[in-house]
Amino acid sequence: MAVSEPLRRNLTPRRIVAVSDGVRSERGDTLVTEEPLEIRAGGPGQEPGPVAVTMRTPGGDFDLAVGFLFTEGLIQPGDVRRVAYCDNLPGQDQRYNVVSVTLERPFDASRLRRNFFATSSCGVCGKAALDDIEVRCPPVAAGPEVRADVLVGLPDALREAQRMFERTGGLHAAGLFTSEGELVSVHEDVGRHNAVDKAIGEQLLAGNLPLGERILQVSGRASFEIVQKAAVAGIPIVSAVSAPSSLAVEAGERFGLTVLGFVRDGRCNVYTHPERVV
Amino acid sequence: MAVSEPLRRNLTPRRIVAVSDGVRSERGDTLVTEEPLEIRAGGPGQEPGPVAVTMRTPGGDFDLAVGFLFTEGLIQPGDVRRVAYCDNLPGQDQRYNVVSVTLERPFDASRLRRNFFATSSCGVCGKAALDDIEVRCPPVAAGPEVRADVLVGLPDALREAQRMFERTGGLHAAGLFTSEGELVSVHEDVGRHNAVDKAIGEQLLAGNLPLGERILQVSGRASFEIVQKAAVAGIPIVSAVSAPSSLAVEAGERFGLTVLGFVRDGRCNVYTHPERVV
Repeated sequence: MAVSEPLRRNLTPRRIVAVSDGVRSERGDTLVTEEPLEIRAGGPGQEPGPVAVTMRTPGGDFDLAVGFLFTEGLIQPGDVRRVAYCDNLPGQDQRYNVVSVTLERPFDASRLRRNFFATSSCGVCGKAALDDIEVRCPPVAAGPEVRADVLVGLPDALREAQRMFERTGGLHAAGLFTSEGELVSVHEDVGRHNAVDKAIGEQLLAGNLPLGERILQVSGRASFEIVQKAAVAGIPIVSAVSAPSSLAVEAGERFGLTVLGFVRDGRCNVYTHPERVV
Repeated sequence: MAVSEPLRRNLTPRRIVAVSDGVRSERGDTLVTEEPLEIRAGGPGQEPGPVAVTMRTPGGDFDLAVGFLFTEGLIQPGDVRRVAYCDNLPGQDQRYNVVSVTLERPFDASRLRRNFFATSSCGVCGKAALDDIEVRCPPVAAGPEVRADVLVGLPDALREAQRMFERTGGLHAAGLFTSEGELVSVHEDVGRHNAVDKAIGEQLLAGNLPLGERILQVSGRASFEIVQKAAVAGIPIVSAVSAPSSLAVEAGERFGLTVLGFVRDGRCNVYTHPERVV
């Protein structure tokens, strides 16, 4: 479905001045690469038009583009015909910063709701935000049940799978795990939401949606948007190393997701639907 | 300039299930509140129209609205006539989630560039993103020079000033400091960018821009957008507890900002313009 994606430079070398106890020294360092990605979409015979620009770490660009369009409610899993970098742009630098998604059906760009999901007509409050997701969420499946000792081990497993973090210390990660704690997929990105979109987009392109038997483990906090994206993909368990927000917990409650936070040091907090934790 | 803002509920209580070494117990917990904020803007005699919706922690809403409009290049410091909550909305819940900014001059909503700063016409790459900021950035002033021992103390000072973090563990913070390390302002938010916009917006409303003698300390990483916002406000030093991204460093280099990362345990890395660190 997707043409192959070239290896991208996701680490950037840099000379820096290190100061330690007042002593300066110069040395090499490695930064995580951040570059804009423009996501375009169009129907059959349509010229794909710009939908959004996101700052991201190169790598998994097709997964990110498709995952973003899906979790934002703009496409359905069966819609994707072809994913490709734009080949009619002037510079080589830009070529790999624009991804076009060609769909099986006409695409209406006016459906873009990111940053605008709530307007004066439908209300601007947490409840309106939840109402908005509800209309495009399948019901999340009841299962699986997961052992608490499996859950508390996920953050370490995620960290071990983060190849770039070791070298830069500056990356978010999102991992999909089975209910037995086996890692299915891991993605890293400077943006929290991008890492989740990459993980979900990859599964969409592999034809694996909905993800009713998977656990989403994220490296940081659980915001509303993280739980929203999981809900759209049918993921029943969202686990965060750090704290969830109030609206993340409300979203989990309402859509039937188990939301875990502070999963570390053999402990975890279960904020919603604890029936899946055994 | 701004009418007074009511105290808002920025903490949300919740009953949770805590699991520790396989033992379950139920207890109370405190979550950081996350709610959408719609930002509207309009000129004199215009009905303010929607510009963006951001998920934020209530509190500092006027600072956030003004800071967002300013750092996104939509308004100038002298433009703000009045900031207020919308008073013609149906529900009380929504009333405090919509902020209207009335300007001294007509407002052209089509200038909104967030998520769209780069399009096929101007190129999509790091360089194009930097070009885009350059046109709306004043030159950052040369000074101040800051002692390294002052800089390495800023993260602890920021953490001590975070009132909500202690209770929730789930908040980003942005603090403005003098070159002697005195705290001028601190703001907390579920969103990294929002905390920075609140800090800058507050100073704008107080008539203190540009912020050529201030240091911006952030609790997490330094992304491109953080450095961009600092550059627009004329802040010469951006210090992050964690890593900066490649594009954050490029932006600092190009706009004359000193970017520091991994500021912790008596050490720091200086990524750009080390001449300000003495």
